[in-house]
Amino acid sequence: MAKSPETEHPVEVFGWAARDSSGHLSPFKFSRRANGERDVQFKVLYCGICHSDLHSIKNDWGFTLYPTVPGHEIVGVVTKVGSKVEKVKVGDKVGMGALGASCRNCEMCCQDLEAYCSEKVFTHGSIDKHGEPTQGGFCDLMVADEHFLFCWPENLPMDAGAPLLCAGITTYSSMRAFGAKVTVISTSASKRQEAITKLGADAFLVSSNPEQMQAAASTMDGILDTVSANHPIVHLINLVKPLGKFILLGLPEKPPELPIFPIIMGRKTIAGSANGGLEEIQQMINFAAEHNILAEVEVIPIDYVNTAMERLEKGDIKYRFVVDIGNSLKSA
Amino acid sequence: MAKSPETEHPVEVFGWAARDSSGHLSPFKFSRRANGERDVQFKVLYCGICHSDLHSIKNDWGFTLYPTVPGHEIVGVVTKVGSKVEKVKVGDKVGMGALGASCRNCEMCCQDLEAYCSEKVFTHGSIDKHGEPTQGGFCDLMVADEHFLFCWPENLPMDAGAPLLCAGITTYSSMRAFGAKVTVISTSASKRQEAITKLGADAFLVSSNPEQMQAAASTMDGILDTVSANHPIVHLINLVKPLGKFILLGLPEKPPELPIFPIIMGRKTIAGSANGGLEEIQQMINFAAEHNILAEVEVIPIDYVNTAMERLEKGDIKYRFVVDIGNSLKSA
Repeated sequence: MAKSPETEHPVEVFGWAARDSSGHLSPFKFSRRANGERDVQFKVLYCGICHSDLHSIKNDWGFTLYPTVPGHEIVGVVTKVGSKVEKVKVGDKVGMGALGASCRNCEMCCQDLEAYCSEKVFTHGSIDKHGEPTQGGFCDLMVADEHFLFCWPENLPMDAGAPLLCAGITTYSSMRAFGAKVTVISTSASKRQEAITKLGADAFLVSSNPEQMQAAASTMDGILDTVSANHPIVHLINLVKPLGKFILLGLPEKPPELPIFPIIMGRKTIAGSANGGLEEIQQMINFAAEHNILAEVEVIPIDYVNTAMERLEKGDIKYRFVVDIGNSLKSA
Repeated sequence: MAKSPETEHPVEVFGWAARDSSGHLSPFKFSRRANGERDVQFKVLYCGICHSDLHSIKNDWGFTLYPTVPGHEIVGVVTKVGSKVEKVKVGDKVGMGALGASCRNCEMCCQDLEAYCSEKVFTHGSIDKHGEPTQGGFCDLMVADEHFLFCWPENLPMDAGAPLLCAGITTYSSMRAFGAKVTVISTSASKRQEAITKLGADAFLVSSNPEQMQAAASTMDGILDTVSANHPIVHLINLVKPLGKFILLGLPEKPPELPIFPIIMGRKTIAGSANGGLEEIQQMINFAAEHNILAEVEVIPIDYVNTAMERLEKGDIKYRFVVDIGNSLKSA
C-alpha cells in the first residue's frame, strides 16, 4: 500500500492545500525528503500569491494533481544545511521562486535559461525526478537544493520583496529596458493617480477607452502583457509600432485569438517569456535591495487565503497579496 | 453624377473583375490615370494567382470593394514612359508586386520597409491618394510610378518568375537564411518525393502524422508558415526549439488560437511579415535570375481563372497558377 503524504518522507510538514477544483485551501499535513548533502531546509516566513496559484488550485490548466500546496514566491530562514552546502548557513535568509530543479546540463541550463530546461521541475505542481508531486510554499518548511535558492539581502524586506521571486523576475527577465518611458495600461481609470505618483509611470492609458486607445495606436516600441486572466489582445497589439514587440507573461486559462493581420501588416512580434534564470534572479534581487524596489503588497494571515483568492479573481487587490506564514500558520 | 469606372480616367483598360462575394471573375472595362511624368504604362503579359487574390475576390477579410480586379504578381513590357522616368524605357520588361504606392518619407520607407508604411497603397483593393479603388493585374494595362516597378532581367522567365513578386519576396524577406537545413512540412505525404528531389528540401514532415510530429518536437530553429487557409498552429509551434521563431506569412480568414503555454514556457516568438522592401525585391529578382530560381507553375489562360480559383481553394495546385494574360486576354 502506498504511504500517505504525511508519512512517505521523513520530514514532517504542515501547510494548506486544495483538494479539488473548488480551489478551497485548508490545513494539510504532508512530508518532505530528508536533507541531502546539497540540500537546505528552511522555515517559510512569507509567501506571495501569484495568479498562477489561483489557476493551479482551480485546475484551470487541466493538469493539477490534488492535493496541491501552491506558492512559489517564498522567503524564509535556513534551519538546516547538508554537508556540502556552500551558499548559505543556518540562520541566513533565503528566497525560492518557481523553479525547484532543472537538469543543469543542457543548452538552456548552461546559458542561465533554466526556466526553459526540458527537465525543469516547478516548485509546486510538477512531478519531481522521483515521480512525486512537488508542493509549494504555503507551508512551514521547504527542502531544496541550494542551487535553486537565492541569498536574501539583509536590507530587503521579506514581505514586500517576496513577489520579486515570480512577478518581479518575469517582467525583469523579459525586458531589461532600464530608462524606457513607461506607460501603464489598465482597464481601470481609478489606478491612474497611483500609477503616476506612486509607481512612477510616465503615462497611463485606459484600455477600455476607445478614444485613448486610438490616439495611442502605433506609438509603443513594446508591451509587456502581465495579465493572467482571460483577455483579448488585438486592441493592445494595435498600440505597438511596426516592428515592435508584444510580450506575453501571464497564462490565461483560455488562449486569445492571434491577431494575424496587424502582426503581418506591421511585421510585429508576439513573444512569450517565463521566469528568469537563476543568476539573473539573484542579480535582480540584489538590484532591488540596492535601489529599494519593492512590490505594493497587502500582507495577510493564512486564514484569509481563501478570501484573498476570491478577491484576486475579481481583480480586487493593489497589487499583490503576501501571506505572513511565519506568524499565522499554526499546526492543528 | 459620378462617372463610370470605364470613363472616369483617360486610359481605357480591359480586365476581369469580381462583382460580389461569389468571387466569380468576368470581363470588366475600366480606366486608369493619364501617365504622369514619373509614371510608366506597361502591357501585362503574365500575372500570378496568390491565395490573397482568392481571399480578396470572396471578401473573406471583409473589406473588399467591388468591382475588384485582383492580381499583384505582374510582369509585362513597357509601352509608355513619363518625361522624368529614368528606370526603364519603352520595350523593357518590368515587374510589379503588391505595393502600388507609399509615402516615401516615413521611418519605414527610409529603411526599405515600404510594406509597413502607414500610407501604403496596395496594387489592388486599396484606396489610392485620390480616393479611388486600386485595380490589379488581371487586365491588359497597368499605370504605376516607376519607383514601384522592378527591372526584369532578360534571362528570367516571365511566367515562372511572376510568383517571385509576392510569394517569393514574402518568404525571402522574412528569413534570408542562406545555407539553412530546410524541412518541408505538409499535410500531404504525396508531396514528399517532389519536395526532396525536385525542390531540394533536406527533410519532409507530414503534419497530420502524430508520430512524426512528436519525433520532431523542439528540433527547429524557425518555421515559416506560408499557409493562407484556416489552420491551427499549436502543433507547429511545438516543433520549434526554445527561443525559436515561428513566422506567419499567410493571411487566413479566421485567426488561429494563440498557443500561450508553449510560447511562454519555451520563450518562443511568433512574428508576422508582409512583403519585402523595394530594394530588397529588386535584389531578390536579380539573385533569382542569376541562380535560375523559379516557381513551379501551371500557366493558364484567363478563361480558366474561375476554375483555377476553385482548385486553389481545394489545395489542388503544385504550386502556383500564373495567368498568361498576354496571349489569352481578348477585349470583347
